[in-house]
Amino acid sequence: MRGEGPPGGAIPAIDLERLRADLAAVNLIGTLEGQPGINRVSFSDADMAARGWLRRRMEEAGLSSRMDEAGNVFGRWEEGEGPAVLAGSHLDTVPNGGPLDGSLGVLAALESVRTLREAGWRPSRPIEVVCTADEEGRFGGMLGSEAITGALEPAWVQAARDENGIPLTAALREQGLDPDHLRAAARDPSEFSAFLEIHVEQGPVLERAGASVGIVDVVSGCFHWQVTLSGEANHSGSTPMDLRRDAFRGLASFGEGIDAILASAGTAEAKLTVGKVRLEPNFPHTIAGTAVFSLIGRDVEEAGMLRLAEACRSRLDRVAREHRLEVSLRELSWLAPVFLDAGLAELLREEAGRLGLSFRTLPSGGGHDAQTFASVTRSGLIFVPSVGGVSHAPEEWTEWADIERGANLLTAALARLAG
Amino acid sequence: MRGEGPPGGAIPAIDLERLRADLAAVNLIGTLEGQPGINRVSFSDADMAARGWLRRRMEEAGLSSRMDEAGNVFGRWEEGEGPAVLAGSHLDTVPNGGPLDGSLGVLAALESVRTLREAGWRPSRPIEVVCTADEEGRFGGMLGSEAITGALEPAWVQAARDENGIPLTAALREQGLDPDHLRAAARDPSEFSAFLEIHVEQGPVLERAGASVGIVDVVSGCFHWQVTLSGEANHSGSTPMDLRRDAFRGLASFGEGIDAILASAGTAEAKLTVGKVRLEPNFPHTIAGTAVFSLIGRDVEEAGMLRLAEACRSRLDRVAREHRLEVSLRELSWLAPVFLDAGLAELLREEAGRLGLSFRTLPSGGGHDAQTFASVTRSGLIFVPSVGGVSHAPEEWTEWADIERGANLLTAALARLAG
Repeated sequence: MRGEGPPGGAIPAIDLERLRADLAAVNLIGTLEGQPGINRVSFSDADMAARGWLRRRMEEAGLSSRMDEAGNVFGRWEEGEGPAVLAGSHLDTVPNGGPLDGSLGVLAALESVRTLREAGWRPSRPIEVVCTADEEGRFGGMLGSEAITGALEPAWVQAARDENGIPLTAALREQGLDPDHLRAAARDPSEFSAFLEIHVEQGPVLERAGASVGIVDVVSGCFHWQVTLSGEANHSGSTPMDLRRDAFRGLASFGEGIDAILASAGTAEAKLTVGKVRLEPNFPHTIAGTAVFSLIGRDVEEAGMLRLAEACRSRLDRVAREHRLEVSLRELSWLAPVFLDAGLAELLREEAGRLGLSFRTLPSGGGHDAQTFASVTRSGLIFVPSVGGVSHAPEEWTEWADIERGANLLTAALARLAG
Repeated sequence: MRGEGPPGGAIPAIDLERLRADLAAVNLIGTLEGQPGINRVSFSDADMAARGWLRRRMEEAGLSSRMDEAGNVFGRWEEGEGPAVLAGSHLDTVPNGGPLDGSLGVLAALESVRTLREAGWRPSRPIEVVCTADEEGRFGGMLGSEAITGALEPAWVQAARDENGIPLTAALREQGLDPDHLRAAARDPSEFSAFLEIHVEQGPVLERAGASVGIVDVVSGCFHWQVTLSGEANHSGSTPMDLRRDAFRGLASFGEGIDAILASAGTAEAKLTVGKVRLEPNFPHTIAGTAVFSLIGRDVEEAGMLRLAEACRSRLDRVAREHRLEVSLRELSWLAPVFLDAGLAELLREEAGRLGLSFRTLPSGGGHDAQTFASVTRSGLIFVPSVGGVSHAPEEWTEWADIERGANLLTAALARLAG
């Protein structure tokens, strides 16, 4: 019955209670007395303990497990032949993170494989459940999936440090991993047939749309600027309005123009965010001499990003002129958008339709392992709704019914891809 | 020759070299190795040493000196009868302050009195040179002039602390002053005929206007609010623009509206300043959930201040509605404008005209001892230009020629008032 469904032909439904128990079990690891949320920062003891727990669960499910040189964990269903279908996500979290970001994708993949195996379904090609390392970017990248896909630069590995100054190499060694062997984690692209990930949306779109699942077509590109507007710090009482060079006023004028920039440049998915601001000297009675702020621009097309960046530059020049300020820009990063596989997205839509799920195609604003895998294989990403759009916080949640629907879609897609 | 000028009738010119030497001498006190600017924070050892130095200089000039219970120093020319004409300012500075803020007013008054005495001119009423204590508000008020004018509240004295938490009472005791006797510094208003002060402008108006002196008609009123706009902190990548509750956008929209508020409310002298901003969580990739900022509103008429405050409230409500934020206001202080004596301002304009000085009548944005004295006597305030509008900084400066002109105007006015 290789590559075929169980008797009756229908793909079986996952066991929600078992998935719920797995999520509860893994989240005991990293739940700390007196600390909100889940704390499994990558390469912490809790993170490594969760990987050990996962390997045992994989073995119990009949998969052969291994951890590679970067800390990625694989559970392989050795059946059939040819390149494997991979499914998974990550188990590391941000500090005080939520219970689903990453964990859901790993454990739903495990549950899908268990469900298919127990139903007597047999794939025509191997299936691997994947748990990547440091997806949350403690060291500034997506270490695990970049190691697997051969994207790691040795110079970056040597230089990378976390925000407390701890070198990546030291963090790896402390967990018994050899930074000099990181590149051995790279796998030949010919080993992969496809990659599938299920993840919480981390935004409010699906919830507002009343959709149970989202099918991601593209991961937004992103530029990150540090902008400095420089004027003159002066006494707020004795400096007339028309003689000021108020850096705050320049910042405000730029901020007020964000809607106009978005309307004139970028696509309908374009986003601009000023999330971090520092005024100098930052005294109530002193006109701000300097405003330093972050500007994050995102779009789903690189041409849109370029138009957006140009419009931001032009608006900054204009507000600097109007308020007699100097403007300087530092581009901290420019990441182009990543298109996921259109065929795989269509397959996901078909299966969602067959399962009677309300779904919506949408871009992803955040970065995910699926975008790294897109450079070496067909890659697909399923979102489930985030209650209130909340993520990276203890309150992060998705209704169980939506988790079940998303996991059933993953199971159906895995069966199609490995069938 | 009581109340008359020297032979010839002309009021003599001050000795600029002697004033320059006095300024240099007092500013050796508080000039610290490796610290920029002048450091004579009130009730510091340097501040007290400068007061001691001043008393010696007063005695050398033939004045009888005393220090009152609040640390105010008086040098009295006991001549003639009736209420005295007072002239002076303060010797305390902000940390890393400039060489003229306060010192010029004290030492120019001393120089004027010396000049009149040496020329054989004799007043018909006593003249006192005054050096007030803590004009810079280390403890939040204008301690010295408030003590003299009887405006100190005992409860305030007991509660007042500096920004490091040091109680006023402890700072006084450390310098041998008894906080329980502070109220004994209050003088009967009948002792005063007038108060005159010369001070650096601390703004760019006179320099831009090419005027040598300014005659202040009113000290702006000032309200100080702490405004909080509350929205929702969310992921900047996954939250669509139209679903955001971005507190920064509300702040920006308010800031951009400042010109419109000023155009619609307040007088031509109205000013609005946002000098201090704190976003939360203040991460580049996170939409600001909260923006806390200072708003300082100033105007020369209280009716203007009220219109300004109302327009600010209405604009804040509007931006809160537009960006779906909550707004809360905390009024930290509301100080009404203080009108200085119109007759005295006219006298100053007449004398400036007689001296051939280019002058301008202007409001004061900052607070000065002259406004405290205005509650008990006729009070007048002369400004000299600040180079580049700079003050409260080591670079604070006024050209010597302008200092000379201002001191000559003070001398002439003193002679008129005490003549």
